Amino acid sequence: MTAPQVIAVDLGGTSLRATLAGPDGRLGQIRRIRTDARGGPDKVVAQIVELVADVRAAAGSTPILGIGLSSTGPLDPFTGTVFTLPTLDGWNNVPLRDLVAERTGLPVTLENDAISAAVGEWRFGAGRGVQSLAYVTVSTGIGGGVIVDGRIMHGRMGMAGHVGHMTLLPDGPRCGCGNHGCWEALASGTALGRIVRERLAAGAASSMQSITDRPVTAEDVALAARAGDPLGTEILAGEARWLGIGVVSLLHLFSPERVIMGGGVSSALDLMAGGIAAEIQARAMAPFRAVPVVPAALGGDAGLAGAATLAFAAAGTKLP
Amino acid sequence: MTAPQVIAVDLGGTSLRATLAGPDGRLGQIRRIRTDARGGPDKVVAQIVELVADVRAAAGSTPILGIGLSSTGPLDPFTGTVFTLPTLDGWNNVPLRDLVAERTGLPVTLENDAISAAVGEWRFGAGRGVQSLAYVTVSTGIGGGVIVDGRIMHGRMGMAGHVGHMTLLPDGPRCGCGNHGCWEALASGTALGRIVRERLAAGAASSMQSITDRPVTAEDVALAARAGDPLGTEILAGEARWLGIGVVSLLHLFSPERVIMGGGVSSALDLMAGGIAAEIQARAMAPFRAVPVVPAALGGDAGLAGAATLAFAAAGTKLP
Repeated sequence: MTAPQVIAVDLGGTSLRATLAGPDGRLGQIRRIRTDARGGPDKVVAQIVELVADVRAAAGSTPILGIGLSSTGPLDPFTGTVFTLPTLDGWNNVPLRDLVAERTGLPVTLENDAISAAVGEWRFGAGRGVQSLAYVTVSTGIGGGVIVDGRIMHGRMGMAGHVGHMTLLPDGPRCGCGNHGCWEALASGTALGRIVRERLAAGAASSMQSITDRPVTAEDVALAARAGDPLGTEILAGEARWLGIGVVSLLHLFSPERVIMGGGVSSALDLMAGGIAAEIQARAMAPFRAVPVVPAALGGDAGLAGAATLAFAAAGTKLP
Repeated sequence: MTAPQVIAVDLGGTSLRATLAGPDGRLGQIRRIRTDARGGPDKVVAQIVELVADVRAAAGSTPILGIGLSSTGPLDPFTGTVFTLPTLDGWNNVPLRDLVAERTGLPVTLENDAISAAVGEWRFGAGRGVQSLAYVTVSTGIGGGVIVDGRIMHGRMGMAGHVGHMTLLPDGPRCGCGNHGCWEALASGTALGRIVRERLAAGAASSMQSITDRPVTAEDVALAARAGDPLGTEILAGEARWLGIGVVSLLHLFSPERVIMGGGVSSALDLMAGGIAAEIQARAMAPFRAVPVVPAALGGDAGLAGAATLAFAAAGTKLP
């Protein structure tokens, strides 16, 4: 008989993915469809149920212990309720966990995507072997999840670890959350894109001036910097400074053994490592300066691996 | 027979205190002596041993389960080592826990003073009944301790919860830790005193101009504000703003059920509550805005109560 498996599901604003997963973190073939962003919760739940049925059918006689569901949030993992989904229409306090459990007949574990990814990196990626880590994902926004003393840090309503919304500059740019000068407003891919477009519009010399058919993005900045473009290099240095300033606060607040950086912007982490390290040496108290900042290892699959881990844990399976 | 007790000890930069403590958090008579700040670890350990012997003698036949030792830090509660004590001479990686255990023959639990105070407030003060809280003490510096999901947040080397050293203004005033714009550099009693002295030196109209025989302090500002002095009121409003900005980050990072404010500056919390609440309403994401910010209940005894709690826990005593 095949060892029991779980089904890991990742609900994002644009795509919905599901796969079979084993206790060793190995993911099966990942099925992906476009999230019905305008359809409301009923349609999206139906999509999840259908995707789960497909994965289950392909699993044949393999026993399925449950579903680990990673979702964009904010959500409460204890009650299984999704408060809102900013990129999806009609989501307002939806009991997503129980809806999926009822329609599939399987136990469901719900966790937000950043914490799921932190768990995935912890168990199977760049965080293996530590008891405490801070995971940060820098892409459109800045999200994160914190493992401390061998456990997920949840807090009230499971809402801890919103690292992108610590304030680093109280009179700084307005954040999507309504606050000013959040880490996310200063250092996300969105912020980086805004900064480069402002500089280009002001006439800065750069190879990126040739990009005229679409908005210049964080990825363009990284590519330009790799090719030696001075503006790209300068802007990534500014990004590294903000990332370093934020990491120092994470060190002082959570005392992780490791800081793991994921997300699109972190693909340029090699170019920014020196700048981040310089901020840590200048700003962190001595006992914190030795903590390594490392790139995430699992890429976009971290959330699925983490969701699978949580489903196994809920089923009482001891993981390696 | 009397119920077993523990001895709680609080080692501070200026005073050393010890008392008998019961499992209900009740403290006996507190013995206090001046810490031998210039004597080095040997002298201070001898002071602790002597104070413990006094408490023990007074306890008669009451069984003593162990010693809970709260100390200024930084220190590692897992190894029982004090790294340095900034206000005391000659402290460099001192195995304080084991030294005290050897000389007293009692098991010793060592924890830093801010975390001890957080535990004391959690068990017997303003944090009773919650699973997650952030405790902040605003006095000379800003310290803190975080309880999350029913446990102390320790992290690597037990160094988590240095809330005073999150950066809120990267180009702000230099902090004692070497960084710029830490919460402590912006909102501690020391920062508040500096701000009022600068304003008075610049000739601001205030009743505080009459204080000429000593430096004006945070307590003077609170007194002046209570009496309606405009400068005192204005400066406390600025203090409330910085406290509120910091609290918002604590909400987003730790998702506590309650934020507990202690320390000398927090004695003016009633005057600042409106200003702090205004920052929370303006800056915190909606699910966090309902979290109450409350004054600490145990004052200077929180650390002793917390140290006692940890000693009972180490002895396996179930607390109420």
